[in-house]
Amino acid sequence: MAHRIAVIPGDGIGKEVMPEGVRTLEAAAKCFNIELEFEYFDFASCDYFIEHGQMLPDDWFETLKGFDAIFYGAVGWPETVPDHISLWGSLLQFRRRFDQYVNLRPCRLLPGIKSPLADRQPGDIDFYVVRENTEGEYSSVGGKMFEGTEREVVIQETVMTRHGTDRVLKYAFDLAQSRPRRKLTSATKSNGIAITMPWWDERVAAMGQHYPEVTVDQFHIDILTAHFVMHPDWFDVVVASNLFGDILSDLGPACTGTIGVAPSANINPEGTFPSLFEPVHGSAPDIAGRGVANPIGQIWSGAMLLEHLGHQEAANAIVAAFEAVLAACDNSVLTPDIGGQGTTEILGRAIARAI
Amino acid sequence: MAHRIAVIPGDGIGKEVMPEGVRTLEAAAKCFNIELEFEYFDFASCDYFIEHGQMLPDDWFETLKGFDAIFYGAVGWPETVPDHISLWGSLLQFRRRFDQYVNLRPCRLLPGIKSPLADRQPGDIDFYVVRENTEGEYSSVGGKMFEGTEREVVIQETVMTRHGTDRVLKYAFDLAQSRPRRKLTSATKSNGIAITMPWWDERVAAMGQHYPEVTVDQFHIDILTAHFVMHPDWFDVVVASNLFGDILSDLGPACTGTIGVAPSANINPEGTFPSLFEPVHGSAPDIAGRGVANPIGQIWSGAMLLEHLGHQEAANAIVAAFEAVLAACDNSVLTPDIGGQGTTEILGRAIARAI
Ligand SMILES: CC(C)[C@H](C(=O)O)[C@@H](O)C(=O)O
Ligand SMILES: CC(C)[C@H](C(=O)O)[C@@H](O)C(=O)O
Repeated sequence: MAHRIAVIPGDGIGKEVMPEGVRTLEAAAKCFNIELEFEYFDFASCDYFIEHGQMLPDDWFETLKGFDAIFYGAVGWPETVPDHISLWGSLLQFRRRFDQYVNLRPCRLLPGIKSPLADRQPGDIDFYVVRENTEGEYSSVGGKMFEGTEREVVIQETVMTRHGTDRVLKYAFDLAQSRPRRKLTSATKSNGIAITMPWWDERVAAMGQHYPEVTVDQFHIDILTAHFVMHPDWFDVVVASNLFGDILSDLGPACTGTIGVAPSANINPEGTFPSLFEPVHGSAPDIAGRGVANPIGQIWSGAMLLEHLGHQEAANAIVAAFEAVLAACDNSVLTPDIGGQGTTEILGRAIARAI
Repeated sequence: MAHRIAVIPGDGIGKEVMPEGVRTLEAAAKCFNIELEFEYFDFASCDYFIEHGQMLPDDWFETLKGFDAIFYGAVGWPETVPDHISLWGSLLQFRRRFDQYVNLRPCRLLPGIKSPLADRQPGDIDFYVVRENTEGEYSSVGGKMFEGTEREVVIQETVMTRHGTDRVLKYAFDLAQSRPRRKLTSATKSNGIAITMPWWDERVAAMGQHYPEVTVDQFHIDILTAHFVMHPDWFDVVVASNLFGDILSDLGPACTGTIGVAPSANINPEGTFPSLFEPVHGSAPDIAGRGVANPIGQIWSGAMLLEHLGHQEAANAIVAAFEAVLAACDNSVLTPDIGGQGTTEILGRAIARAI
């Protein structure tokens, strides 16, 4: 039976890295005898918004819900559509409506990529950020009072639920339990954010009771970002709220040299709805149109997609392929962000060949 | 006329670094003929809480409000008092009630300190974080519903006001305007935090109208933390909300090698109330009691205190003194966090002597 994949390139470099993501998926599918069926959609992009006045067609939910996975590029083009409109009208909708409550983001220093951190080698940085992906600080609840006057007050609510928190904590503890180091770090800020975060700490402690083999520690988000830079080797699985996870999963990859390679999986663990796979990087208006974006974030996201669909070996083959290409350090192949003069397509083809 | 300084050592290493902070202030005062009068207080510490059941005496506001400045160590001892109780009962009270709405945090790579970032030299990292310090994400507004049940919902409100936002933006723009590069970076997250942050962006743009000579850019907080690691040289003045400023002012100093040296000034620019000077680091229960904490964060905060009181030369002398001691790279003097075998007191005395 073929797996049906919805492909949404989106905006900016999303449109440039997606062909390479699909190319490598096809290469892996061929090697491992997996049937993949791709269907392309132009919505969930700012171009679509310009034409239709909305980011998504009215029937998007029905259209997408039967797919086995969604392969997304990047979204956002602030010059034409404000970010909060494009994002709340697309990616953040998908995450919520398809209940993709886990955002899983590996952070690993790869061979051949220079870390901005001094004296760090591949192996020194290898952890996962598990990010709550449907609630928390990303809410549209709140409003303004005395709008437009000197007395203006603006309120935004953070909403956390036990249901929403416990399930992502459980996922994170399970993941930690399955890894050799069995270590879980919780990102908090219970000294300053006085209602939600002390409660978050309590939920972590309560869940920890069920995992006696997992070592748990916690840091306030401020010093935690500092430790990412000073001691990235401390971390194994880091669990965080929506906002803190967002921050940590850009900072972590930056410590590994470029966020251009970082993948993410927006997972609905129950499989009730399709999960969504996308690079961590955005649409990058500053380099879009030049064909030099690093496609590895998209390609690695494709590997996570295959893994999610049960094809672990094929996923491993993709990871091994880009690791081999990176380790070869051929500057004519690598993209500029990792010190080469190659293009998105040259690097993508090299990786597809290596599979 | 003597300046009256309220000295509050607080908890943990606060009690260890404070004597060195006072020692260097006294040394500078002597050299520059400044009269300083120190008065010590044991409140705003967890020890005080244990004894009195509250962090502060009822008359703390009256007691402190006549001082010219407050010199604070660090607060927090989570083993005995939960962080949100100790912090909301002390430091966060001071910031609010004394309307210290600017938290100014320099971030500078110092001679003799090894940055965790590869290939960075003193001069490469030299910027200020200007943090809103009284409102925003640090609120005590919100609550719980269905408490203790599966349906539990927890809400925390972020509250921003035009009054509170514009005044800190003005401070940041003025600072940027006064520096050679005239560059201001705003930390936002208007793509995800859909009510307060787009509004923050509007206020930044509106304030920017009055400063045609200042170049303004903005980054979402996730990628901004990445740029701190990848391109710390991009930044001159970074303005941020309470939470984002908290994060950036730990991450920035981490990029300069240790948060042990980072100072901060909690400023009431109008001088209606005393301003408060404290290191960025906390009470550090993990190293407290061993006498090895780096006193430079406290000492540099003392320099900011003198500058605030109008003694620029004396402030410069303190900074020059610890820079000279650091540059000498004498491992018997430096504390362990910066690679030495010295103690808090040895390093403090060396700096006082150098003045
Ligand atoms: C201790 C804590 C409440 C405080 C803060 O978050 O403001 C500290 O981290 C700081 O940066 O001064
Ligand atoms: C584009 C933005 C809304 C999104 C987020 O903040 O979740 C992105 O930064 C991410 O990390 O996936």
